[in-house]
Order: sequence, then C-alpha cells, then structure tokens
Amino acid sequence: MAQKPGIPKGTRDFSPAEVAKRQYIISAIKHHFETFGFQPIETPTFENSSTLMGKYGEEGDRLIFKILNSGDYLKNNEVLLQDKILLDSVLDGFFVRLYNDLTFKSSVSIKTIHDKFSESEINSIDNWIEGNILDLKNKLESLEEQTFKKNSLKNLIIDNKNEIFKSALSIIKKISLNLNWESDFNRLKMMLLTNKGCIDFSSYYASQISEKALRYDLTVPFARYVVQHQNDIVFPFKRYQIQPVWRADKPQKSRYREFYQCDADVVGSKSLWQEVEFVQLYDGVFTSLGLNGVTIKINNRKILSGIAEVIGAKDKLIDFTVALDKLDKIGEDGVKKEMLEKGIGEDAIQKVQPLFNFTGSINEKLDKLNELLATSEEGLKGVEELRFICDNVAAIGLGESTLDLDVTLARGLNYYTGAIFEVSAPAGVKIGSIGGGGRYDDLTGIFGLKNMSGVGISFGLDRIYDVIEELNLFPDTVTESTKVLFINFGDKESLYAMKAVKQLRGAGIKSELYPDSAKVGKQFQHADKRGIPFAVLTGDEEINNNTFTLKNLATGEQEQVSLEELKNKIQ
Amino acid sequence: MAQKPGIPKGTRDFSPAEVAKRQYIISAIKHHFETFGFQPIETPTFENSSTLMGKYGEEGDRLIFKILNSGDYLKNNEVLLQDKILLDSVLDGFFVRLYNDLTFKSSVSIKTIHDKFSESEINSIDNWIEGNILDLKNKLESLEEQTFKKNSLKNLIIDNKNEIFKSALSIIKKISLNLNWESDFNRLKMMLLTNKGCIDFSSYYASQISEKALRYDLTVPFARYVVQHQNDIVFPFKRYQIQPVWRADKPQKSRYREFYQCDADVVGSKSLWQEVEFVQLYDGVFTSLGLNGVTIKINNRKILSGIAEVIGAKDKLIDFTVALDKLDKIGEDGVKKEMLEKGIGEDAIQKVQPLFNFTGSINEKLDKLNELLATSEEGLKGVEELRFICDNVAAIGLGESTLDLDVTLARGLNYYTGAIFEVSAPAGVKIGSIGGGGRYDDLTGIFGLKNMSGVGISFGLDRIYDVIEELNLFPDTVTESTKVLFINFGDKESLYAMKAVKQLRGAGIKSELYPDSAKVGKQFQHADKRGIPFAVLTGDEEINNNTFTLKNLATGEQEQVSLEELKNKIQ
Repeated sequence: MAQKPGIPKGTRDFSPAEVAKRQYIISAIKHHFETFGFQPIETPTFENSSTLMGKYGEEGDRLIFKILNSGDYLKNNEVLLQDKILLDSVLDGFFVRLYNDLTFKSSVSIKTIHDKFSESEINSIDNWIEGNILDLKNKLESLEEQTFKKNSLKNLIIDNKNEIFKSALSIIKKISLNLNWESDFNRLKMMLLTNKGCIDFSSYYASQISEKALRYDLTVPFARYVVQHQNDIVFPFKRYQIQPVWRADKPQKSRYREFYQCDADVVGSKSLWQEVEFVQLYDGVFTSLGLNGVTIKINNRKILSGIAEVIGAKDKLIDFTVALDKLDKIGEDGVKKEMLEKGIGEDAIQKVQPLFNFTGSINEKLDKLNELLATSEEGLKGVEELRFICDNVAAIGLGESTLDLDVTLARGLNYYTGAIFEVSAPAGVKIGSIGGGGRYDDLTGIFGLKNMSGVGISFGLDRIYDVIEELNLFPDTVTESTKVLFINFGDKESLYAMKAVKQLRGAGIKSELYPDSAKVGKQFQHADKRGIPFAVLTGDEEINNNTFTLKNLATGEQEQVSLEELKNKIQ
Repeated sequence: MAQKPGIPKGTRDFSPAEVAKRQYIISAIKHHFETFGFQPIETPTFENSSTLMGKYGEEGDRLIFKILNSGDYLKNNEVLLQDKILLDSVLDGFFVRLYNDLTFKSSVSIKTIHDKFSESEINSIDNWIEGNILDLKNKLESLEEQTFKKNSLKNLIIDNKNEIFKSALSIIKKISLNLNWESDFNRLKMMLLTNKGCIDFSSYYASQISEKALRYDLTVPFARYVVQHQNDIVFPFKRYQIQPVWRADKPQKSRYREFYQCDADVVGSKSLWQEVEFVQLYDGVFTSLGLNGVTIKINNRKILSGIAEVIGAKDKLIDFTVALDKLDKIGEDGVKKEMLEKGIGEDAIQKVQPLFNFTGSINEKLDKLNELLATSEEGLKGVEELRFICDNVAAIGLGESTLDLDVTLARGLNYYTGAIFEVSAPAGVKIGSIGGGGRYDDLTGIFGLKNMSGVGISFGLDRIYDVIEELNLFPDTVTESTKVLFINFGDKESLYAMKAVKQLRGAGIKSELYPDSAKVGKQFQHADKRGIPFAVLTGDEEINNNTFTLKNLATGEQEQVSLEELKNKIQ
C-alpha cells in the first residue's frame, strides 16, 4: 500500500506563491543589509554538539535537534549495547546478591519477606547494601579490559557509585512493601536508571549516539565563525546571515520547528554609531516594504541595572519589568499590586513613581530617567548612551517608522549589555514583535576570543510575512510567473513556436510552450488556472507569414504580430 | 577553558566572497529556470523517516542523517529503557532458568559443567531450550499491561521467538566450551542481540529514537509534495527547487556532507518537447555563465534495454556499459577483454561491434543504432525518441554548448525510463559531471499517485563553482562589496557624514561610516584591506561648504564634490 504523504509537525512546504512572497521580503532585507555594508556568510546546517550545547540555558539545550551519528551506530561501535550490558551486569549482580543473601525465592513477594523481618533486620539490609559498594567497585575494575576498553560508562559508574547505591537503597526502601520480585525487579532497575538524583543516563546515552546538532540560532554559529576565522577577518566585521534555524519547540500557531532568521551583526567596535545605524536599517527595510507605522523600541541594559539599583533589589528586576509592562492592561494600581505580591517594597515602588506615568517625547523620558537614576552611575551611563543614539537618529531622520524609548523592554536580559531593540508591527495588527536585537559585550569569549563587543539585530521573517499579508501589502507583481503560453498545435507548429519562445526567454520574458498537442480548450484552461495573461497561437498562416497570433486572455482581444512586436507587447 | 571552535567534517563555512560567487551561479540558474516557466517550491529540511527510507537502496538508507526524537526522549517516553528492561527480563529469565535447571553455580565455569555432561545430556539441553519457548511466550503475554502497553518490541519478540531461540541455542553450543558464567553470560547476550540471523535490534532501536531524517535529495521530497498537494497543483507542473541536501558519505575532496542541489522537473506530461527544453536550459545557463564548450550528453534507457536484448543478457547491461565507457582509456581490445571476463559472450560482443567505433554526428550515430537495434522494438523506440529530441534541438539551435549522444551513459539505470542526461565540463577541466537528469515514468507512485511521468535535470553547484574558478570566469564585480568608506573624524563630522551615507544607500550604493574616530591611517588601512575603492573625508571646511572630499584609493586622487556629484562618481 502506498504511504500517505505528510511532513513532520512544525515544518512547512512552501508553494510557488509563498516562496515568491518570502523572497520579496528577503530581497528587501538583503538589499538594505548590503547597502549598509554588511557582507553575507553561511554556516553549516549542523554544528558539533559541543559548539551549541550549554549556550542557550537548560531549556535551550532541550530544544536543540540532535543528529544520530551516521553509519550503523549500534552495530558498528556497539557502545550503546556494551553500556547496556555493563550496566546490567553491575545492577544484576547487585540485585542477585540481594536476592541470594536474603534467601528470597522467585515466587515469594518482598512483602512476605518484609513481614518476616523485624525493623532491625530491615536496617541490616541497609548495612548489607552499603557494604557491597566496595565489592561492586572491585567487580567493575576487574571487568575484562578487552570487552569494555575505552568504555566511559564504566568510569561514570565508578565515579558515581555512592550516588547510585544511595538511590537504589532509597528506592528499595520506598517500594519494598509492595514489591513483587518477579516483575517489579525490572521496574526497580528502570526507576533507578531514570532517577534524577542518580546519574543522568539520558544525557549520557544521547552524547554516546549523537555528536552533531541542528543550528538553533545564527548568533552562536556567528561567534564560532568569527573565532575560527579571526585571522581572515577585517575588524570591525559587519556580517549578515539569512538561514533557517531549528527548535524542538511544541508546534503551535505561528511557531514553527523550522524557520528563517535574518541577522545583521557588527563585531569588534563599541561605537554607538552602530546602534544609530541599526535603527536606520530597521526603518529602511520596513519603509521599503510599505510597512508604515512600525515602532522601533529601544532601551538599554544599563538603565535596567540603574532601576534595579534604585529599587534596591537586583534579583527583582525581571518581576519589576514584567509587571511594569502591564501598565496599559491593568493600570497603575494593578501593576503596583503585582509588584508588592512579588516582594518589591512600597519604598522601592515609591522611588520609581515617575515610571508609572512615563509618557512624552524621548527627550522628556530621558530627562525623567536622568533624575530618577541620579544615584546610579551605571543608570546615568545608560541615559547618556540612549541620548546619543536617539539624538542622532532624529538628526538623520527616519522614513515611515517611529523610534520610541520603552523602559520595560528587557528581552534577553542576561545576554545584552547595552542597547536593546524590539520592533512592533503597525498599530492594529495583533502580532508580537517583528524584530529584535541588542549589544552584547563579550560575544566570542566562550570560544576563546576576548573583548569583542558585538551588536546586532534580527528580522522575524514569518511574522513580517503575516503582517504584510494581513495588511494586503504584497505587490501583485510578486507572484507573477509565466507571462505567455504558446498553444501546442503539433510538432511542426511547436518547433516554430519554440524558436520564438527561445527569443522571448532571451529577453527575460517567462515563456512556455504547452508540452502536449491537447485540445485547445484544455490548453487555454491551463493558462487560466495558472493566471498566465497571454497566449500565442501559431498555425500554418502564422508560419507562412512569419507572424504570431497574440491573445490577451483577460480581454479576449487577438492580433497578428511580428516577433519584435510580440516581445514589446508582453514585456 | 574556552572551546576550540570547529565544524563537523564534510561541512563548510562560506565567507562573504564565497557566498557572493555561489549566489552568482544560483542567480543564473534561477533566472533561466524562471524564464523557462519553472516555479520555485521549498520543502522542509527534515522529512518523516518513512518518506525517505527505502527510496535510495540499502546504501542510501545508511547515508541518510537521522534526527533524534526531540525532548528528553529517554526520560520522557522511556521506550528505550522499557525495551531494554523487557528484553533483559526475557533473556535473563531464560538464562537464569538455564542456570538453575542445570544447577550451575556462579563460581563454576560452563567448561567444568560441560565436562560433566555426556553428549546425550548436552543434547537434552537443546530440548530443554526448545521446550522453554512456550514458557517464554506465556511470560511475555502476561507482562503487566500497565508497564509495557503499546510496546512494539514485545510483539517483535513474540513474532520472532523461534528465531531468537534458535540463535541463542547455536551461540550457546558454539561457545559453551569456553564460556565462563560470570562474565561471559553477558557477552552471550550481546552476541545474541547483534546476531544478524536474529532480530535487527539495531534498526529497531534507531526507529524507536528517531522518526525524522534530513533531506537526502530533492526528488523524493518533490514527489511527496506533488502527491500531498495534488489538488492545489495545475498539471503539467514545472517546479524548481534550490536547497541543500545531506549525505553521511565519507567526506573527501569535493565530496561534502552538506551540499546544494538545483533541480528543475516537470511532472504530468510525456511530451518529448520537455527533453528538448532541458537541453536548451542547460545550454542557456552554462552559456550565460561564460562556460563555453560544455558537452550535454544524452542517451535513452530504451536504447540500453535494446542493447541488452541484442546481446541477450539483461543482467549484464551494467557490466557492458561500464566496460564500454572505458573505450578511450583501454582501447577496443581492453574493453572486449573486460566484457569476456564479466561473462559476456563472444557472439554478443560481435553483435554490437559498431559500438566500438561509435563516432560521427548524432544522426550518423542514430542511423547506426537503428540498424543495430533492428530486432528490438524497445530499442527502436529509443532511437525514435532521441531523434526527435536531437533534431529539434538542432533546429532551434544552442548557444555555446554541444549536444552529443553517448550510449555508455547509464546513470541511475534502475530509475530512469526514458531520456538520460549528463553534462561534462569543457575539455581540459578535470572534473566529473556538472549536471545530470532524466525521465522517470512513475515518479509519484510510491506515494500513491499513479501514472505521473516526470522528467528533470539537476545542476551540480559545487562542481560548477570549481570549474568557473579554475577557468577564472567569475566577473570581478561579483565579489564587490562596500563602495565607499566615510572617514570618522568625530561625532559632529560623523553626523554630517551619516546624512550623506543615508542618501547614497537610498541610491543603492553600498556605503559605510567607519564606526570609531580612530587614527585616519588605521581607517584607510581598513578600507584597503577590505578592497573598498573610495573614501570620503568630511572636516569643518566640507561641512561649511556642504561638500565632500572624495578620495580614489587606487589612484590617490582627491577632489571636492557635492552630494549629487558624489553619487554619480561612485555609482
């Protein structure tokens, strides 16, 4: 039976019209990246796991797609199987000994045994188990080197033997009353292996069978690229990168497991002119896409630090900004109530009272901040940086976008060290941010290159697509494909047609001959279904006169034309 | 300690210059695809394993990159661990019973036991083992449903119980003399599990922990796309697709684990005009890239079938074409010697003698084939098809490429059913084929859509890149990036500069301000290293006069210009 075709959840096929629309957006982004002096790089779809793991937090690590080592990993290196057997031999030995020493019989449940033993005898089981740890160690070390050489799990078990047996002990104690030897013996092993307090066998196995992983974002591969190729790069280095990334997120509306990121970053300079440029870059792209009324929100990590200083609670900063961000929705009282609930004191809230009525021009906001953060050196530095950026953006001017200062903006709080950007769609479009970015002072440190400040922004292709679609801003020409279909009347006529088709294609006109000499009606229908605006008919008369009958499929008008006229009419 | 950055073997980073050159080739291919009426689609990076597996032969399956199920697959669904434990419980039960029934003791080796038993007693062990199969079946079926529900391995074991125990029996017999119970007991299990004659646990485990795989080519995903979206597609459907694919091949020079394919296919028509078009398409792309002297080789599967018929050995067809292909290298005698060695008879070789001197024009070759294949209906059909294609290509005309008929061309023999294409680089460039393709009569059948003939070609991006590089045919303009660097003299001057930069960028000129007011020498050095041809200097004088000092960095010439003049000079 044939397979029913489908694709993995969270992924998408793109039809010709969708590809064309996506390309339209990507072209606009690319054009602006390039006029701003950014140069493209591309990195591999998969990186070594060690490059990616540990860079995105515990949650991020979990969402990274891992690739199975190639080849027949089980048959060829048998590491997994060796591990499995090693582990069995250790644990089975342990349990069999327990079984023998307590003279259990296979048909007798532990409960029965348990009833037979006094409390003090049960305690002696503990002692027995602990005494066996040494024995286990010896057993492990005497395991034939030939079979288990280079087996890292052996070392892992030896290193963690105390933990393993403490876990075993506690599990046995916990479930011994209900344990039935025959079937639960194995369940016990399973519990032991998956017990969090014990070894993380799950990660261990994953690391044994997978050494590569799909790109999770473009920033870490970029940092890796910069360090790896540092001798070939001229700094400051302005690079852009437009490639897909993959995340094993739970798929839901507008959240995909495969999606494009469009990033531009500069690395190797602390100049604030770059922040000025990025605001212009956002504006340039969105203005050229006809997306008027976009708001480019800016903040600075140092201002957030300043606020934390002023409220005297660095650890409450996230709670504070999250609550403050709800000002529009739940009002001043609601926000203050939430802050109090989160443990931010009345005094602290009082000190930042101006933030609850934080309106006006950017300059007015900056003046308020200047006053508010007067006691925080770092906060004042943030105000100064923001003023430089906003003043210069204003002096140079923006197209159809608006710059605004948003002190609740805190994305990637632990990551950014200076400017923070986020772009929201025009008012009325209910969609999250369509771009974001910021400055991070030590981009490449993790790969060994210190003191490299970076600043960058990202465009959210899928969201931008949705906004343009919703506002009906895709130009009709974007999805235009074939301009003219030559009707197929047979081989002789087709050869005549194909010679003309060749000329039209040479002039850049998308042209086709219908491949089969089907009924003319069917061919016209084909043109209609595909939205092809012109048809050309070639019969004996046309061939003899070296002309073409051009039919406008929208109006039905028909005329005899020369090849040159044909080119001009269709172009 | 910082990690040393690197990328997985067989993958590549692409620098800005490399990306630009690749894009140059891709643009040429895309432009021709589109003028020929092909429309772009994109499919996901990973497909369901079931979509890909079994489509590329056993070797292909092995080379498909598999993706680990996302999430903490061991901790969350515990399937692997359940299987492991289920398997243990079955096998351990088996071995423990063996142990008990034979009253082995843990310190006694099987050899000792073996010495104690007579031949007939050993045979009775066989009987015992076979008798236990029923017991095993009962045990499996009584396994607590709660724990092992939905466990497909349980069914796998039940279905294969006879095989498993035959294997176990034979292994035990084979190694029993040298078996030491304590340590070899486990090795025995390992042998049983990896034994080829038994269950393929390796594939089973892979299927349990991986359900997705990276795209291996663009043809199978295209077939899947066509069937899945058949109701939205207008047939004949001309699609192109330019995306990377992944193969776990052993990396070597010019063979990568990640590489781009550029495919154009038509599905839903048997018209030979499409073959005519594909020859023109190859010619159009290579001519526009300046790659003169490319040979587009064509053959037809039906001609190969005809030859097989004539030599009376269908199974020897591959041996025959492989040998014939060496004519240039080892001469007629060498080829015939190889054919004889491969078991192709003297008679058969005699019958196709004309193929050993197969020169002349395409028409001459077709005439020879017509004679040679006179007894083969299928062969003659192949000649007829080729004649149609070659005659029409000649009548329409090619640019800088040559069409040739190559009867040794047999790529993807089991796949293609009609035309077969392969393109070789211009003479003198030592590189394999730079493109290939053909017709396949049942592209989509595997996914349930019958009678869909397809024909398509592919461009080998990496090879084309290497050829263009070797022949030095990349235009200099391809890698041009920033045209002008504004020297940074401080914030006031920079603001003045940035206003001009904005204008230039608006006119599509790639322009930058050096981000820091570093020493002027350092800034010029930066422009030099990056190959930026112009610098602009802006001091008080320029600001007061509303002018710019433009410096040509190649000649050193300097002049004062207005913004308008600046635009024109740099453009």
